[in-house]
Amino acid sequence: MSATTPQRIALIGLGTIGMSMAALHLARENTTVDVFDTRPDFEQYLRKTLPVFLSHHLTSDVSEPDSVLPEAVVSSLISSGRLQLHTSLETACASATIVQEQGPENVAFKQSLWKQVESIAPPSAHFWTSTSGIAASIQQGEMSDKTRLLVVHPFNPPHIMPLLEIVPSPETSTERVEFARAYFSVAGSKHRPVVIKKEIPGFVGNRLAFALLREACYLVQEDVVDAKDLDTIMKASLGPRWAGNGVFESYQQGGGEGGIQAFFEKLEPTLQQVWDGQGRVNLVGNEETQWKDKVISQVNEAYGSFSNEQILEKEARLKDFVNVQTKSYGHLDTQK
Amino acid sequence: MSATTPQRIALIGLGTIGMSMAALHLARENTTVDVFDTRPDFEQYLRKTLPVFLSHHLTSDVSEPDSVLPEAVVSSLISSGRLQLHTSLETACASATIVQEQGPENVAFKQSLWKQVESIAPPSAHFWTSTSGIAASIQQGEMSDKTRLLVVHPFNPPHIMPLLEIVPSPETSTERVEFARAYFSVAGSKHRPVVIKKEIPGFVGNRLAFALLREACYLVQEDVVDAKDLDTIMKASLGPRWAGNGVFESYQQGGGEGGIQAFFEKLEPTLQQVWDGQGRVNLVGNEETQWKDKVISQVNEAYGSFSNEQILEKEARLKDFVNVQTKSYGHLDTQK
Repeated sequence: MSATTPQRIALIGLGTIGMSMAALHLARENTTVDVFDTRPDFEQYLRKTLPVFLSHHLTSDVSEPDSVLPEAVVSSLISSGRLQLHTSLETACASATIVQEQGPENVAFKQSLWKQVESIAPPSAHFWTSTSGIAASIQQGEMSDKTRLLVVHPFNPPHIMPLLEIVPSPETSTERVEFARAYFSVAGSKHRPVVIKKEIPGFVGNRLAFALLREACYLVQEDVVDAKDLDTIMKASLGPRWAGNGVFESYQQGGGEGGIQAFFEKLEPTLQQVWDGQGRVNLVGNEETQWKDKVISQVNEAYGSFSNEQILEKEARLKDFVNVQTKSYGHLDTQK
Repeated sequence: MSATTPQRIALIGLGTIGMSMAALHLARENTTVDVFDTRPDFEQYLRKTLPVFLSHHLTSDVSEPDSVLPEAVVSSLISSGRLQLHTSLETACASATIVQEQGPENVAFKQSLWKQVESIAPPSAHFWTSTSGIAASIQQGEMSDKTRLLVVHPFNPPHIMPLLEIVPSPETSTERVEFARAYFSVAGSKHRPVVIKKEIPGFVGNRLAFALLREACYLVQEDVVDAKDLDTIMKASLGPRWAGNGVFESYQQGGGEGGIQAFFEKLEPTLQQVWDGQGRVNLVGNEETQWKDKVISQVNEAYGSFSNEQILEKEARLKDFVNVQTKSYGHLDTQK
């Protein structure tokens, strides 16, 4: 079964990530989306929330108030049969070609869910989990056919952020990995799926982020810089650099003609000195856990709570960055 | 002396960073720039290179070929007296209010330079070094008045990147730190100076970058992801996130109503697990130095050498990101 043929996706758990996924799937052609969530006001919540996410997937600038789709769009999707609401897991999964879950991050819940889904979904259906922390090899504990399950980890906010980390377990079949990659790579998609070759806690994106966060907390703890100034530094240097180039691409350029090898040779003493002196703050245990209050109070003082308007502004800016990434630059048109 | 009064800046060392700094200073009103470099073809090199950097500082979109200033702009600056070329350090520094060096990253050179500059520049002149690695407290070794020197560390490419890390030594006077901060904070400047409160190897920006780079090299070494896919992950998630929000601001938002404290509580097990398992690759020593060949060969294979067109495209994109950062978003106009 090809990823571009009609698909029927059963979505289990429609919180923020699930709602964004519903919109993502509905924005494609040839999809039917079956949704199931246990919250009592599910239909009301979906009718109110889904149009916002659909707007992000279907229009170019949702920061314009007029571009948010009316709630009637949900009624139209329901009456056409493209969107189907369910009150049981059984009916939601019965005809699925893909079952995707965004439920609680809890091992027992995930294992029990997949065991049940396996018994009710068609035998060829693909099983995807949006988890950020529980590997497929753990979630599959009670499944008979462990080749069907893999992680599809989106990044916040999922309706704008292009990344999807596809993380198979050692048992996941190559065909199912390739199907997921192909599904999110369809022409016109704003999403960029990347297959991670081995399971590892935090996958890749969060491991990189948490390594930097640890050093950031250490620098605040040591009074080298305060939290707000550290954020200014990030926005005024590494953020835009890494948004345009990756990490390695930046240092390949930074090394000049000799590339990243020349960069390593030139920076060797400083780089090793920084690595040797990296902070080792901890959240758990008896050592180096005193930094937390300082970081939390500085961050609260700097930002407080974000208003809805501020969050909309952040989302609009993030969309602008993603648009810059995909913009064609005139003098290189011939290469595209 | 206020940072907004007329200044006369002696620039020592006119490589890429020095040339960008010359353009930055010349783009201001009320400045005279004295330049000194020991390369034999200095004047010819400056006449060819400076217009490109000036264009970046004076025009909004230098990716348009027509927006690069003609070489005649240099003759005009020289004939008006705003730009003065020197063949000796003595004449370059004789009337300076600021002396800024971008010479070789070598302790003996810097110490000897500042001792000499101290004996020839006016007693009130400010001394700035653009070093990325040699702290002011080391460079000042042979100076009599150690209150005058501080680091002004720009980020590559310096003509576009807004960040300047201002890093005083423990001896630098508060007034001189404030003068430097004020000088780069002038209205209309695209630069964002941040004062670092303590000297530390790598300052702040590079410490954050190198912490992340270490984990990136580890993930490639462990075959979790290849170098190019890691860059895709960065560009599709953390890059644009951190370009729009800082690190702490992102997690303050990520924690929802409870802010970064709720984020730490919710993510505690995963965060600590990732921190405990962080890679410890090294450039120097006997342990964990085998990763280098794999990283270098993957990066070379992914990118090769960059053409001038590719570098221009990268710079145009970086300018676009910086422009998005300073763009005003309609629905928040009333708050600006």
